[in-house]
Amino acid sequence: MRDVNQFTVTEAVKSSFDTEDGSRFQFLLETFIEHLHDYVREVNLTHDEWMRMLNFLYDCGQISTPERHEYILLSDVLGLSALVDMINTRGGATEGSNLGPFYLDDAPVKELGADLAEGREGVSVLVEGVIRDTLGNPLPGATIDTWQADSSGTYPIQEQEQGQDKYDLRAKITADEQGRYYYTTVLPKPYTVPYDGPVGELLRAGNRHAWRAAHLHYIVRHPGMRSITTEVFFENAEYLDNDAVFGVRKSLIAKLEPVKKASAIDLPLERRPDAKVHFDFTLAPEG
Amino acid sequence: MRDVNQFTVTEAVKSSFDTEDGSRFQFLLETFIEHLHDYVREVNLTHDEWMRMLNFLYDCGQISTPERHEYILLSDVLGLSALVDMINTRGGATEGSNLGPFYLDDAPVKELGADLAEGREGVSVLVEGVIRDTLGNPLPGATIDTWQADSSGTYPIQEQEQGQDKYDLRAKITADEQGRYYYTTVLPKPYTVPYDGPVGELLRAGNRHAWRAAHLHYIVRHPGMRSITTEVFFENAEYLDNDAVFGVRKSLIAKLEPVKKASAIDLPLERRPDAKVHFDFTLAPEG
Repeated sequence: MRDVNQFTVTEAVKSSFDTEDGSRFQFLLETFIEHLHDYVREVNLTHDEWMRMLNFLYDCGQISTPERHEYILLSDVLGLSALVDMINTRGGATEGSNLGPFYLDDAPVKELGADLAEGREGVSVLVEGVIRDTLGNPLPGATIDTWQADSSGTYPIQEQEQGQDKYDLRAKITADEQGRYYYTTVLPKPYTVPYDGPVGELLRAGNRHAWRAAHLHYIVRHPGMRSITTEVFFENAEYLDNDAVFGVRKSLIAKLEPVKKASAIDLPLERRPDAKVHFDFTLAPEG
Repeated sequence: MRDVNQFTVTEAVKSSFDTEDGSRFQFLLETFIEHLHDYVREVNLTHDEWMRMLNFLYDCGQISTPERHEYILLSDVLGLSALVDMINTRGGATEGSNLGPFYLDDAPVKELGADLAEGREGVSVLVEGVIRDTLGNPLPGATIDTWQADSSGTYPIQEQEQGQDKYDLRAKITADEQGRYYYTTVLPKPYTVPYDGPVGELLRAGNRHAWRAAHLHYIVRHPGMRSITTEVFFENAEYLDNDAVFGVRKSLIAKLEPVKKASAIDLPLERRPDAKVHFDFTLAPEG
């Protein structure tokens, strides 16, 4: 290896890793090394620039905590998370979108028709739809696992110190025998991703804002089907065309319609909604 | 941006950054985004793999301190630091090599002929040579800034708690009117880079060792010339062909010769050496 130069060093580094032949690990690592090295050669990276990049990663570590993963945020604003969601979406299935940092896997189980708002201010909205497979067959027993911000753009988990319950505005709900799900909640508002750290500095350096378009989060599951993690957005809402984490897809935008007559809604609801949103989910088979 | 897909998202992310036209920052950022996205598409990265990579970066942050920069270590073992050194070496000048984590910018100034060993065990070695420009003219007044491990492979700065002085085995020495530098020290031994963190896990996963070939560190400076940061290695030493951070270059390997007769050395030295090493440095003009 004493004869390496800027062109042969990449091969030397790749072959220094000695793993199982044809392993996924080796492939992921070798391809990563190739791209990193190609990048350095392509931009003719200086020592100063190299050091600033490594210090940026160091600073991301300094602000990270179990509750704040600055590298996920970095992946989000660089569109990397969106790209991973896109390439992992199965043909015919609902498109995937950001999981985000606020998911809890033990949300309370609620009944169909429940109201998640629990007295919160804001527009009461009925969210309903059908969960189907890619052939169009309804999937009775499918579950939605949903979480969202409130009408001020805040997740209750972010305001636990102000007395909020982190399990509010979250629910696991099982679809009925026709694959239908329905519940009422409060309409979420847009919010900013955290921009008081290194990723915020990057956004400012690039003259970018930190706003996300308002959305509802979902993980939809059914035995034998591939789960999807996605978000539902609202037609004509702010930031649909410049969401800070590139989460919006055309197919994930739902129409928000006023509910004029309560009698027009043929569902057993805990609370009368002011508006409604219809969104159907489609799951592809596992494997 | 609601129409993005896995092929158009890269352009969308690039154009979301709005910086000065043709700026270096924009170029570095756009090229980085291209490589990151190409990587994800090329390997078809899964959500699990994506999360493991981000958690690896998170873990590097958790073990990093002002004294330990796990991202520099990562850059080192991926040959990135070596590549940056290589592309920033000027034609005709001494090749660059790793700065490493142990540099202090306020090493003690010492006289030509000084002994840096200060009673330490090990082989006493004379290190000498000439500092020239790329035309072969000696550079009187050039300085070497050197630091090194001891004969057990440890830097005194690593053993401050055991009573060692962090400024030991370091010196700034000015060359004489012929551009010559010379001093005695103790022959350094190989050592391992820190492998008790995430980077160590990566090395183990790739069946790699953490050993560095024994070396002397240098920064060589002269007004009007481009400083070089490099390392000098020893012929026939261990790990020259599999140095953990890819720091060895053929041109940086010096011959270690026994000193049989003290009278054969025509230099005013503080201590009689057992062996000698000759290495000349060449600096290119600034700019």
